[in-house]
Amino acid sequence: MLVVMQSQATDQQVAAVERHIRELGLSPHPMRGPTRTAIGITGNTSAVDPTSLEGLPGVRELLRVTKPYKLASREMHLDDTVVRLPQTSFGPGTFTVVAGPCSVENEEMALRTAEFLMQRGVRLMRAGAYKPRTSPYSFQGLEEAGLDILDRVRRETGIGVVTEVMDAGHVELVEAAADMLQIGTRNMQNFILLKRIAKSTKPVLLKRGISATLEEWLMAAEYLLSGGNRNVVLCERGVRTFADHTRNTLDLSVIPPVKKHSHLPVIVDPSHGTGRREYVPPMSLAALAAGADGLMVEVHPDPLKALSDGPQSLDFAQFDKLLDSLKRLAEPLGRTIC
Amino acid sequence: MLVVMQSQATDQQVAAVERHIRELGLSPHPMRGPTRTAIGITGNTSAVDPTSLEGLPGVRELLRVTKPYKLASREMHLDDTVVRLPQTSFGPGTFTVVAGPCSVENEEMALRTAEFLMQRGVRLMRAGAYKPRTSPYSFQGLEEAGLDILDRVRRETGIGVVTEVMDAGHVELVEAAADMLQIGTRNMQNFILLKRIAKSTKPVLLKRGISATLEEWLMAAEYLLSGGNRNVVLCERGVRTFADHTRNTLDLSVIPPVKKHSHLPVIVDPSHGTGRREYVPPMSLAALAAGADGLMVEVHPDPLKALSDGPQSLDFAQFDKLLDSLKRLAEPLGRTIC
Amino acid sequence: MLVVMQSQATDQQVAAVERHIRELGLSPHPMRGPTRTAIGITGNTSAVDPTSLEGLPGVRELLRVTKPYKLASREMHLDDTVVRLPQTSFGPGTFTVVAGPCSVENEEMALRTAEFLMQRGVRLMRAGAYKPRTSPYSFQGLEEAGLDILDRVRRETGIGVVTEVMDAGHVELVEAAADMLQIGTRNMQNFILLKRIAKSTKPVLLKRGISATLEEWLMAAEYLLSGGNRNVVLCERGVRTFADHTRNTLDLSVIPPVKKHSHLPVIVDPSHGTGRREYVPPMSLAALAAGADGLMVEVHPDPLKALSDGPQSLDFAQFDKLLDSLKRLAEPLGRTIC
Amino acid sequence: MLVVMQSQATDQQVAAVERHIRELGLSPHPMRGPTRTAIGITGNTSAVDPTSLEGLPGVRELLRVTKPYKLASREMHLDDTVVRLPQTSFGPGTFTVVAGPCSVENEEMALRTAEFLMQRGVRLMRAGAYKPRTSPYSFQGLEEAGLDILDRVRRETGIGVVTEVMDAGHVELVEAAADMLQIGTRNMQNFILLKRIAKSTKPVLLKRGISATLEEWLMAAEYLLSGGNRNVVLCERGVRTFADHTRNTLDLSVIPPVKKHSHLPVIVDPSHGTGRREYVPPMSLAALAAGADGLMVEVHPDPLKALSDGPQSLDFAQFDKLLDSLKRLAEPLGRTIC
Repeated sequence: MLVVMQSQATDQQVAAVERHIRELGLSPHPMRGPTRTAIGITGNTSAVDPTSLEGLPGVRELLRVTKPYKLASREMHLDDTVVRLPQTSFGPGTFTVVAGPCSVENEEMALRTAEFLMQRGVRLMRAGAYKPRTSPYSFQGLEEAGLDILDRVRRETGIGVVTEVMDAGHVELVEAAADMLQIGTRNMQNFILLKRIAKSTKPVLLKRGISATLEEWLMAAEYLLSGGNRNVVLCERGVRTFADHTRNTLDLSVIPPVKKHSHLPVIVDPSHGTGRREYVPPMSLAALAAGADGLMVEVHPDPLKALSDGPQSLDFAQFDKLLDSLKRLAEPLGRTIC
Repeated sequence: MLVVMQSQATDQQVAAVERHIRELGLSPHPMRGPTRTAIGITGNTSAVDPTSLEGLPGVRELLRVTKPYKLASREMHLDDTVVRLPQTSFGPGTFTVVAGPCSVENEEMALRTAEFLMQRGVRLMRAGAYKPRTSPYSFQGLEEAGLDILDRVRRETGIGVVTEVMDAGHVELVEAAADMLQIGTRNMQNFILLKRIAKSTKPVLLKRGISATLEEWLMAAEYLLSGGNRNVVLCERGVRTFADHTRNTLDLSVIPPVKKHSHLPVIVDPSHGTGRREYVPPMSLAALAAGADGLMVEVHPDPLKALSDGPQSLDFAQFDKLLDSLKRLAEPLGRTIC
Repeated sequence: MLVVMQSQATDQQVAAVERHIRELGLSPHPMRGPTRTAIGITGNTSAVDPTSLEGLPGVRELLRVTKPYKLASREMHLDDTVVRLPQTSFGPGTFTVVAGPCSVENEEMALRTAEFLMQRGVRLMRAGAYKPRTSPYSFQGLEEAGLDILDRVRRETGIGVVTEVMDAGHVELVEAAADMLQIGTRNMQNFILLKRIAKSTKPVLLKRGISATLEEWLMAAEYLLSGGNRNVVLCERGVRTFADHTRNTLDLSVIPPVKKHSHLPVIVDPSHGTGRREYVPPMSLAALAAGADGLMVEVHPDPLKALSDGPQSLDFAQFDKLLDSLKRLAEPLGRTIC
Repeated sequence: MLVVMQSQATDQQVAAVERHIRELGLSPHPMRGPTRTAIGITGNTSAVDPTSLEGLPGVRELLRVTKPYKLASREMHLDDTVVRLPQTSFGPGTFTVVAGPCSVENEEMALRTAEFLMQRGVRLMRAGAYKPRTSPYSFQGLEEAGLDILDRVRRETGIGVVTEVMDAGHVELVEAAADMLQIGTRNMQNFILLKRIAKSTKPVLLKRGISATLEEWLMAAEYLLSGGNRNVVLCERGVRTFADHTRNTLDLSVIPPVKKHSHLPVIVDPSHGTGRREYVPPMSLAALAAGADGLMVEVHPDPLKALSDGPQSLDFAQFDKLLDSLKRLAEPLGRTIC
């Protein structure tokens, strides 16, 4: 940390700040420049809250130097993490595809989709039983009945199920039907939910909050990691900006910084990221080229009849075409689609 | 709703869209212009999901005309709503001040703050027992012990307590200690929590999500209203933008649109909105002048020692000065500080 | 400046960075912490470009401590600047109103507006002769003919004229007809224009760019100040965010930080800031309460017939009512409307 | 266009709106729904400004249906445009690389870079003679001397030169030294500059404004096209958002919508888009996979000594490696690097 003094700060004020730093058990390093003094702080700054320094007379601002995430940080864990599921894994060298409908609408469609995906070599199906909907008047998911369907489908087909948990009180129920727990964008900072899922033995898919900085996203992961769940996969799904050409602004530019600052795998959801089916294939290919570890894409047997997110779902033929393109592109990148 | 066809759309495509609209139980109104056809839709569009139309051949886009919120809408409820608590109320003619520390740190400071506020005529104290914190390593609030303190303080002083609920599973506990339930910015779209609080008899303070549009905010209120809780007060607390001159960007410009589109009271939190104590007084006065129904402001007996949000808390003397300024400004605006 | 090393940085890498700093004529101050080393830099960092340091091995990031603006900074100029025009001034104690139509449409309406304003005690009229329009097919302003009209109107009525300059090549022409040169939001970083206007003897109204940070805005002012024109008034006019409840997001929260970091007067344009006439009065009052030094507001004799920006213009009666409200509010704030 | 009436609007108000529409020479199409009336408008709405309708009693809002750009629109021009230069072209099937230093620093480095690029098959060099800099104290470019150097270098090596024009008054000078005129992000809505360059015979590279919507960007292109210059290449270079993990947020998600709504070629600048050299290669590959028509990338013989933008420039070896990766990736995409 660095305390920047005002240019008119007096020697007494500088001394008072140094004293306060020592009282916090830290070491001050004053540096006098031509226009002002800055005071570096060393020591274990994470244990105390030196923001109190900002209120001292003569202080202009406080600059933090150390990143607040530790377990999620690449500096603490140089090698890429591999997150393993019974059916597949997420990590270096592979590009793992998760596909399926926005929500479980009935057993027939869930089963039909799972069979189609398994036949194509896709080992993880996404499908929501609990659906976060902006409007109380929209379809809210089949809830427990949806979980039952998912459980039967995975037993019957062997596909792995990725599905969203919306509340700490639902975790036990969802765990029983899912192979991977999804934390949705609106719950990235639902800290009660994060703490509860940190106790789960199931791997987690942690979507980026709709306006989360990279640091906030990694801090949400830190809740999971520090609580005991080390199997965290990040998922970029579009952020909120002024831009209105797509439903959200899919931020592929976050992929290389995630790789630089963290060891966790990161995948991309171009369906929510763009909101329009025709933009999903080019953005999927771009996600692969940008270095993402996988893809989460909405596929529906009959998108025109989907109860939610129809306009952004691919039909089976469109998904087949996308999978072919991904395979062709993966080769020169030294990656395997799985 | 309005379906806009592509300029090259064929007559057959237009006819197919009209047919699809009728199948949804709605009425199509085709309008042929010089370059393209648009098709207006009338009928009860909220009952069906016509987004399926976006996938039909020849369709360029779908424009929604009706606002999706109903109970929160001024069009359905012309008069301003007054939200009444035992200690005070929120609504036209008054400017209701809620003040207090970020979090309950111990009984002594909570009691001291409550007594100070009551003496100044402030009837509602904010103070968090459960604290949403970006970092798992930060102070997370006293939790149940904090609720106990709040309950004792309100019995002893008569002040009303506004405190945050972070999880549906906590509602019962918090209800027992609070006069008003606060839904924090990170939980504005925690729909499980919204549905649960909709069943509570306590009034609700609904903070705006950090990147929520006005429509999404009113839709969150709609969850509460349609679930049975009509006592909803909105709270603007700063949104996320590119701007870095304050912690968040306090969006006072949302106040007049809230008043136009909704009948619900709306207050402003300049402490979280700006993140710096010195900006709190001018933004508080501006909130009053902009037409807000009240203020939520952080006050701490000793901000330098606060366990959270110290840099944005006023001390008692600063709060006194602000209250004086508010009273002087309220008069020409025909408002009463309470 | 502070160089933050990676936690794995070697002693050799630290030494190489220190050497590079000395080669730049600056002094390094290494601080060894438990996890990493940071190196403070003192000396005149504005004369060199130490961003080259970011590329050295072992460097994680570079944090800038000193604000890059100097002449615009309050640290260099403690007293508030007063910008004086022949007709009025901008500065502490007053709240200066600039009003008028978006564009000069013809002599009759310009004259009628000027007479109305002078009668109300408003001494500065805004009116565009050159209009920046998003579409090449929209009305582009009367250009030179508009300047001629403005010049006649100010001679006839004595009102001061504030009008936009869109190009360095137009400055001489506009100077001849204007009392204050306006730099529009799209030209805040038109550096050729800034350098040219820095040579003008006319005061300048510098609008904030549509997504300019406070620092970028003050740096644009720095171009004017360092080039020789010290009469700069800043104008907040709404920024671009995700929010869609108004045309732009009027950022009143920037007013207190402008006052803290700079000595320049700052006014607010709620007409462009909100885009809707009904929101202009509450946001004008809020601007006054937030500490702005004045207002720029669109007034048109017949807004329904305006060639541009009709929906955000007040008519004369609405403006009269606003002026009354401003006067009543100014008194308890110790300000005078002028 | 569609006029949406308030739900309480009277029949008289609806009739008045219809009358106003007819007075504008357009046709009203009233549609009565269960809660409100909407009125479609057909006719040539671009010739008039119906925003005046928003001020009529009973009107809630006005929705625009037709896109305001025409010559830039794919609806008016189904085939992809190919922009040809003497040295190369931009259009379908190819991926055109433009590379070079941020600014011309001296003849030796410009020549060395040009020779390196020509040897690698890159036919266009970027290099700024006029540099838009946030700070008046930063290096502002060699200006005319820089143009002279560029002119000599292109004569000597045969490379094409792409360089920025910052002011309408500079166009003639820059035209003499450049093969393609670049309009920078800060000048995307410098309409005087756009109108002047519309008269040039040189092709144009139009960078997206830092917070420009797709529509505003295409409207800027419309200024060029409607003024007579049909050789426009768009360039995405990062937009401004809340995200702070990169210098700007490179918006690759705009590529597919550009392709859908326009026929103009579009390239990507990952150097300004990310601001860090290590992120340039993955984002370059992603740009190719997303369907961009080319790349603009900063290359410098010695980035550590660059006078501007060093941290985001590749050195020759890094560029070589990137070019190899692009070539390998282009093949399965059916594209040729040129």
